[in-house]
Amino acid sequence: MSGPIEGAPTLTAVVNEVNQTIADVGERALLAVMRSAGADSEVAEDIVIGTGDDAAVLAGNRQTVLSVDTAVQDRHFRLDWSTPWQIGARSVIASAADVAAMGARLSGVLVSIAMPPTTPVTTLLEINQGIIDQTHRLGGRVLGGDLVSASEISLAVTSVGVLDAGPVTLANVRPGDVLAVSGPLGAAAAGYAVLATGVDGLRSRTRRSEHWAIDEAVSAFVLPAPDLAQGPRAAAVGADAMTDVSDALIEELITMSAASLVRLDVSSRSIPTPRFAPVIAELIGDDDSVRRWALAGGEDHQLLAAFGDAPPHGWTIIGRASAGAGVFIDGAEPNLHGWQSF
Amino acid sequence: MSGPIEGAPTLTAVVNEVNQTIADVGERALLAVMRSAGADSEVAEDIVIGTGDDAAVLAGNRQTVLSVDTAVQDRHFRLDWSTPWQIGARSVIASAADVAAMGARLSGVLVSIAMPPTTPVTTLLEINQGIIDQTHRLGGRVLGGDLVSASEISLAVTSVGVLDAGPVTLANVRPGDVLAVSGPLGAAAAGYAVLATGVDGLRSRTRRSEHWAIDEAVSAFVLPAPDLAQGPRAAAVGADAMTDVSDALIEELITMSAASLVRLDVSSRSIPTPRFAPVIAELIGDDDSVRRWALAGGEDHQLLAAFGDAPPHGWTIIGRASAGAGVFIDGAEPNLHGWQSF
Repeated sequence: MSGPIEGAPTLTAVVNEVNQTIADVGERALLAVMRSAGADSEVAEDIVIGTGDDAAVLAGNRQTVLSVDTAVQDRHFRLDWSTPWQIGARSVIASAADVAAMGARLSGVLVSIAMPPTTPVTTLLEINQGIIDQTHRLGGRVLGGDLVSASEISLAVTSVGVLDAGPVTLANVRPGDVLAVSGPLGAAAAGYAVLATGVDGLRSRTRRSEHWAIDEAVSAFVLPAPDLAQGPRAAAVGADAMTDVSDALIEELITMSAASLVRLDVSSRSIPTPRFAPVIAELIGDDDSVRRWALAGGEDHQLLAAFGDAPPHGWTIIGRASAGAGVFIDGAEPNLHGWQSF
Repeated sequence: MSGPIEGAPTLTAVVNEVNQTIADVGERALLAVMRSAGADSEVAEDIVIGTGDDAAVLAGNRQTVLSVDTAVQDRHFRLDWSTPWQIGARSVIASAADVAAMGARLSGVLVSIAMPPTTPVTTLLEINQGIIDQTHRLGGRVLGGDLVSASEISLAVTSVGVLDAGPVTLANVRPGDVLAVSGPLGAAAAGYAVLATGVDGLRSRTRRSEHWAIDEAVSAFVLPAPDLAQGPRAAAVGADAMTDVSDALIEELITMSAASLVRLDVSSRSIPTPRFAPVIAELIGDDDSVRRWALAGGEDHQLLAAFGDAPPHGWTIIGRASAGAGVFIDGAEPNLHGWQSF
């Protein structure tokens, strides 16, 4: 789920035109309105952090962290681009990243699988195996599931994590903190560009010595491999704030800046990018792509965090927080935007 | 989710015909195969009970219970039968019932909402309000959510509960236990029959003095109102086993009998039924409907439990467990079956 929104619209403002559709209003505004409708501090004293951050936190002896993320056929994945195993595995990564972004290690997942009755059994079983294998890789277990009939395939994955330190919210960046990311950004976006251009066509007009870049890019889109263990590691060293880069670095920075009431400055040249990205950019013929993928690409599920001290091994510093407001990339307000569902 | 299955088919048996679809194989067999694919006791020591019961249980100081349930447009609800508020509220009841069936009280829910971009904003906000209001009524809070674009509306609700006593599994019925249910069965099925026949047509050829029965039946389908507080109450008095009646009483009895390795005998005349059921049966012209709705109807989300002693106030004894195997209704093996997704 997405983070809190600055200047959240009121219910009245959103629904004042009778025939508005959710596409008219947009995902972020809708989530903000829905969240405010649920605000009620009088019930359920067990909850520490509710909606609005990457994941919810339940109080208790060992704090439990929860988040849900959904992947829909032909919107988040395509059966001709990914194998069923990859689709299942990727749905777990996208959900588990939200739990890691609170500083938690994964305990398990609950999965709602919807698919047409005409789906081959092998497709379901391979998706299921991808979910199981990826969950085990991340140290968790499949806790439960639901299988329903629908007109397209979708996977709603609820991740459950346990906190040893933290939770690390979005809203506690302090002036003077360094901003760092847990791995390269723009990989999934480069892979998407390859798939959208056509892998076979691109391969046929490319030197054999550059095929590795096409393969790695596609792989980064169909199954991103962020090091989610960096979430608990960042929490253990006392990170001030953290989120995962699911929508786009720029969107996450805006959300974090608004939630923490600080100014965030990022140097685009310091953002780590995958070694295949410049090769793909050249093949596609757009030299500015690498920077755009890194800033606005999304779906890499790397972690973005703010540290008062030096970040742990594996993190790359990309910028700094200071007193003020807003997000500045290389000193200017960004004019790129990330991806929204509607 | 459904419970464990007797004689679960092997992976090989299910996929041995290459072109089999999930409709060919059926929901229960698929869930059993998917569950066995995930069996792995070497990971994630935090989990006490994994897939196979109503809900999963996480160990800890205060045990956390988790379950997911999904409602899909035109399969679980229709926009011309229910209001958006009712659709949202009902999705919470269906999910929360699984948590109650472990003996837990609801802490909160996480909701994945999928809908077409052309959906009116008011529909989304009313569904959201139904989810929030029903969650609050059950003592919980909306912990998180996800909103995605899809070609039809679906709601995947993950419920989180806390155990003060229990967990009460499916698999611990003992010979000599009495079987009891927490409220009337067949109400939702009677409501479905009314809606499928056509409310307006039925009303027009019915005495005004019987309209209350039509209204109550419809209401029972669009928003069942089981007393889910009976779940923790049953756990507190030491119930041996419990589940919620989501598919059909017969299906739940078969699952419970197989999981507990006992014979279950139920007297159909002792099953509580709603006072409107005989009126609706007469209107529709099928006198045997009341019994059929109660045994095979499903979707009431009342609780079915086994007690060594007398059940608490609010429960009705419907039968008894003994050494042996199988389910017997009025002394005979049942020939009615409940609902499956595929």
